[in-house]
Amino acid sequence: MGDYKKMWQDLNMDIEKHDILCEALPEQFGDIYLTQENRPEAMNYFNYVVAEIHGARIMELEKYKKEGGKVVGTFCVFVPDEVILATKAIGVGLCSGSQFWIEDGEKILPRNICPLVKAFTGAKIGLTCPYFQSCDMIVGETTCDAKKKAWEIMDEYIPVHVMELPQMKREKNIKQWEDEIRIFINRMEELTGNKVTIESLKKGIDICNGKRKALKRMYDLRKNTPSPISGLDALLVSQVAFSDDPERFIEKTEELCDELEERVKELKPNGKKRIMVTGTPMALPNWKLHSIVEGLNAEIVVEETCTGTRYFENEVSTEGDTIDELVRNMAERYMDINCACFTPNEGRVEDIIKYVDEYNVDGVIYYNLSFCHTYAIEYEKIAKALKEEDIPLLKIETDYSEEDTGQIKTRVEAFLEMI
Amino acid sequence: MGDYKKMWQDLNMDIEKHDILCEALPEQFGDIYLTQENRPEAMNYFNYVVAEIHGARIMELEKYKKEGGKVVGTFCVFVPDEVILATKAIGVGLCSGSQFWIEDGEKILPRNICPLVKAFTGAKIGLTCPYFQSCDMIVGETTCDAKKKAWEIMDEYIPVHVMELPQMKREKNIKQWEDEIRIFINRMEELTGNKVTIESLKKGIDICNGKRKALKRMYDLRKNTPSPISGLDALLVSQVAFSDDPERFIEKTEELCDELEERVKELKPNGKKRIMVTGTPMALPNWKLHSIVEGLNAEIVVEETCTGTRYFENEVSTEGDTIDELVRNMAERYMDINCACFTPNEGRVEDIIKYVDEYNVDGVIYYNLSFCHTYAIEYEKIAKALKEEDIPLLKIETDYSEEDTGQIKTRVEAFLEMI
Repeated sequence: MGDYKKMWQDLNMDIEKHDILCEALPEQFGDIYLTQENRPEAMNYFNYVVAEIHGARIMELEKYKKEGGKVVGTFCVFVPDEVILATKAIGVGLCSGSQFWIEDGEKILPRNICPLVKAFTGAKIGLTCPYFQSCDMIVGETTCDAKKKAWEIMDEYIPVHVMELPQMKREKNIKQWEDEIRIFINRMEELTGNKVTIESLKKGIDICNGKRKALKRMYDLRKNTPSPISGLDALLVSQVAFSDDPERFIEKTEELCDELEERVKELKPNGKKRIMVTGTPMALPNWKLHSIVEGLNAEIVVEETCTGTRYFENEVSTEGDTIDELVRNMAERYMDINCACFTPNEGRVEDIIKYVDEYNVDGVIYYNLSFCHTYAIEYEKIAKALKEEDIPLLKIETDYSEEDTGQIKTRVEAFLEMI
Repeated sequence: MGDYKKMWQDLNMDIEKHDILCEALPEQFGDIYLTQENRPEAMNYFNYVVAEIHGARIMELEKYKKEGGKVVGTFCVFVPDEVILATKAIGVGLCSGSQFWIEDGEKILPRNICPLVKAFTGAKIGLTCPYFQSCDMIVGETTCDAKKKAWEIMDEYIPVHVMELPQMKREKNIKQWEDEIRIFINRMEELTGNKVTIESLKKGIDICNGKRKALKRMYDLRKNTPSPISGLDALLVSQVAFSDDPERFIEKTEELCDELEERVKELKPNGKKRIMVTGTPMALPNWKLHSIVEGLNAEIVVEETCTGTRYFENEVSTEGDTIDELVRNMAERYMDINCACFTPNEGRVEDIIKYVDEYNVDGVIYYNLSFCHTYAIEYEKIAKALKEEDIPLLKIETDYSEEDTGQIKTRVEAFLEMI
């Protein structure tokens, strides 16, 4: 990473502590990513993004803020980026994927909650994430108990706007979510001083749909046997989607897909088992499960997660001549995401079974971040449904530490031999 | 307990497994309750209720059902009992307070979720709770991730109606809860065939308010120094409130309060530290913390929990000439409960500080059932507020097992010495 010490100081970061992270990340990335053979050329851009993750992108945010722009941080696929773009703000997904932040998080949160929540809280209170420091506001949501209550603590450090996500999917719940989107529009207008117009909202929708299309194109290419891109690389692209400039991200991902299309023409069987990962999100730099699985004779070809299909499936319609109609379109698209936070959540079972077919999957790994209750309990339903369909399933519950890496490897190995 | 084998068989219970529970409970109750000195005479009724907990009361339910009546099971202080009574159904709080049910619960639920949720699920799938077997329907709510998702599993065993509790307390959330109450009225009307009328609903409200008044009277008496009733006995009365016939419960609790009023006239100082318990509910027969604390030189004088003040504080107004007005009154009263499931939940801080004063409390014990995220995270806010007020606070996170009893005793002892 370049020399950004001055910028980090201006952002009131804990430079000394942050240096530890800056030293560890390139090594981790090198070991996991750069040792892969025959990677697409176009992944160089994404390598660069990681190398500059706390540098170049932050400079862009700071430059934008100096020009009067606003930056808001988000954590969840339910926060409508369309609105953020429509008010000319920049939205960034925040730091939450590293064990590095856990220690600080546990200073004010219980140890036995999900590592993602402990990590982002630790990143903020430890002053070791420049994205947090750049943000004018955080947008939270009530998707789970741990996040819902963590916002209250976070709000003491940085302004947080919480969107109340309904817990069911009845028509009245979609209306409730419409209303939450309208409240969010007002809040973003206040923050930025920019009014949302039909035009700006349609443009925001177009950009978000563009990201969805690019990711969908990459995922469609992974349906080939073998996949023209590793699961690790595809995961990295998805992770970068959350914080990169959206228009540049679309361009670079489309370039990658062009290259992958060429590769598809000369694919040769590699004998690898095709794996789906389903469950909880993998925030940057959480590459733990993918690196274990792809270190064995397997490739991950699809992630039914918030850093996978749930992020890009279904577009927001731009049909309509009023803001209310567009808000309705957004509400419908977002409420169609099959997150375990809903009860019931039958759509997720259908999605998984559909993807097994579409992606020609040999076995499914249920990835559950420790102490994530909604996904952990929903496992029972998914397991039952997959058993009826004779689809092999392995459950892995884990956090960000390296302690159980050996054990997970042994279990995945046994699973691969079985399927 | 009398001979109810035939009834339990008819209820399709696992008699052999249930016998183990039936043998253990009287011994546990004897050790904890009957060894207390100088108990109020009127506690005999509550002793009887526990002795007959799976017998006499179940016979009443079965008799009522034979006459065409309906029984619904509930788990939460947010479920409006007024509606259940207005449709001439019987509502009962369900089994969820014993370690006995955990093993069965863990067969289909993750181990690392709250013991209360594992216990009620285990009680149902293990066929060892006659209340569950008597129920025509269960009423769930979306108060926490674990319960929200457990209902989906429960619904495969017994019909479950889930009420979506809002997660915030804005005006629109109160309206949402009104709507959930209306949906619940419809469901109860369907189940029972009895229409809710202004008169039946007002009568239901009166009965529920009567329970609240009786419990409030008992709690007010505990404000005396020393309290004329032990924390253990008061807890038992609160626990019995959830499953007993409401009118009989009111009568027996008022009788108890009459006796306590007499006692107050001749109270002598006992030198015991006065303790408040705040946090998660203690379902029958969970007497673990109370028996530890009152085995030492202390008395528990108030519980800011769902089996304490949150159950009885604030009455539902009967003012209004339409069902809609009464529904509004109910929604307002229930949405005024300060449960950690809401964000934010500032009212709870105020309640605790107010009770410290009103009940002349020397120290507060924060009781957190293991893996209950909302209360565990909210601890941080409560701790901060109590520190500012110089109120001593001890956090105990525990489940239903006996393994940590010694450790908790040591910690409470140290706490009592300190305050």
